[in-house]
Amino acid sequence: MSLITVGTMAFDAIETPFGKVDKIIGGSATYVAYAAANFVKPIQQVSIVGYDFPQEEMDELTKRGVELDGVEIVKDKKSFFWSGKYHIDMNSRDTLVTDLNVLEDFNPIIPDSYQGAEFLMLGNLMPKLQLSVINQLKKRPKLIVMDTMNFWMDIAMDDLKEVLKNVDVLLVNDGEARQLSGEISLVKAAKKIMEMGPGFLIIKKGEHGALLFHENHVFFAPALPLEEVFDPTGAGDTFAGGFIGHLAKTKDISFENMKTAIIVGSAMASFCVEKFGPERLKEITKADIDDRIAAFVQLVNFDIDLV
Amino acid sequence: MSLITVGTMAFDAIETPFGKVDKIIGGSATYVAYAAANFVKPIQQVSIVGYDFPQEEMDELTKRGVELDGVEIVKDKKSFFWSGKYHIDMNSRDTLVTDLNVLEDFNPIIPDSYQGAEFLMLGNLMPKLQLSVINQLKKRPKLIVMDTMNFWMDIAMDDLKEVLKNVDVLLVNDGEARQLSGEISLVKAAKKIMEMGPGFLIIKKGEHGALLFHENHVFFAPALPLEEVFDPTGAGDTFAGGFIGHLAKTKDISFENMKTAIIVGSAMASFCVEKFGPERLKEITKADIDDRIAAFVQLVNFDIDLV
Repeated sequence: MSLITVGTMAFDAIETPFGKVDKIIGGSATYVAYAAANFVKPIQQVSIVGYDFPQEEMDELTKRGVELDGVEIVKDKKSFFWSGKYHIDMNSRDTLVTDLNVLEDFNPIIPDSYQGAEFLMLGNLMPKLQLSVINQLKKRPKLIVMDTMNFWMDIAMDDLKEVLKNVDVLLVNDGEARQLSGEISLVKAAKKIMEMGPGFLIIKKGEHGALLFHENHVFFAPALPLEEVFDPTGAGDTFAGGFIGHLAKTKDISFENMKTAIIVGSAMASFCVEKFGPERLKEITKADIDDRIAAFVQLVNFDIDLV
Repeated sequence: MSLITVGTMAFDAIETPFGKVDKIIGGSATYVAYAAANFVKPIQQVSIVGYDFPQEEMDELTKRGVELDGVEIVKDKKSFFWSGKYHIDMNSRDTLVTDLNVLEDFNPIIPDSYQGAEFLMLGNLMPKLQLSVINQLKKRPKLIVMDTMNFWMDIAMDDLKEVLKNVDVLLVNDGEARQLSGEISLVKAAKKIMEMGPGFLIIKKGEHGALLFHENHVFFAPALPLEEVFDPTGAGDTFAGGFIGHLAKTKDISFENMKTAIIVGSAMASFCVEKFGPERLKEITKADIDDRIAAFVQLVNFDIDLV
């Protein structure tokens, strides 16, 4: 029940209304791995880093069952760097700097030892590279989950649509769902997007929760109302990691179990935002996760009699 | 188990991306009454209209068990008129015209026949008038629910805080909760607002659902994802009407039953937005409402095993 995760491993500089960090570990695959490692082992990481990516971070991931054979280390270049500043509402942000660095040369190679993985998480990345990973797998995984973003819709929509034909679950936010479908109504958007390939669509709405669409079914999971949202960076990737981690652990890809996976993903994301970067994800225990999931059950649980 | 509802009865002109109406029935008390009448009778309306308010609308309300003894008819003035235009996302709108007309003279008088009501719904209105209604009641109702808006926070905050000391449930949207409390986090905002008086706080987030706070408890109800949101006007008032209608019907004001009341309110609001003005609310049957509530149960229902 191994899980391949593909995406960036990076440095971020982040400014929120509550503080600032100049250099902290980031990257989609990093967050996915830290979240998923709570549920499934091994996690087989595919990424690229520069000479500056800290060995301690690699060791920390290895300790948690993350295999790094598929992580290319480029000796003469720096790791991908992103810098952003959040607005006061924490729902929107400005990108200040994007230094691609090693990402310019990224051409993911799937190690032989990764072949046969049952689950594949394609983190947000150039669509051509996501497709290349799928094509390298000799046996199609049981479930392929794909994350993407508006940036690729702007500059590589055709490639993105090609990947969509090959995946089972797409993860986007509400604005991206509207952009991809040309529909304002999320219900209509979901129908159009599922016709493009994925049988399941998850629309992430940040602090407003997430929707799961499949055929004519829809499920909604709220985000946990928190006293402090310290740094939203990586919350979407952490959500994805918890989601696919739960599915890989249970090996059950039914709609019913995906509902549970969304609650697990939401719980993981609610930890992520409590501290800068992936710091909080490194601290939490299984008991913390169980408590948080129980809080979600309380949040939405009601009894109703139709009299 | 009578219910007094106080608020406006008006004409609206509405423009949405999907259409336009120059003159349609509106007003907070109108929507509350149409929604609540599905659950409880009599509804004792307190409002003011001009010579131009249609008799057929009055008859329609009467037919549904709405008593109009507390609705003043001013012979030489027009009814309150509001005109607004919704943005493409339907989440925000510009007010184009506000003609107070009869509202300038509104001084609500509670008829003797209304005394003894167990439930009071104070629709969005000048805080001084809301307080005047409370003070006219010889016996305090079992539950007082208050709606308000940012406009009164801007120009009559002291009066508004005085009303808050006297109510049990406050209904506001997320921006208003932040303005009233000075807190960005809705969890912190809720704590501060409940210290101002109301034991229960409902934060409406439009298409993103609603939160109910009470002591250390929080409950979340989503909005139903709809294919078509035709006109959001009155959705908040309709939500309030369904909410207090269910409570007045069941006479149970526990936190548990308020959760159910929020689902009922959300179901009613989901009908309201399907057509212009209160049109859709006049069409629906008990079976329609039961079906819609069942759809909410499906939307959020999940089973989780903490293993």
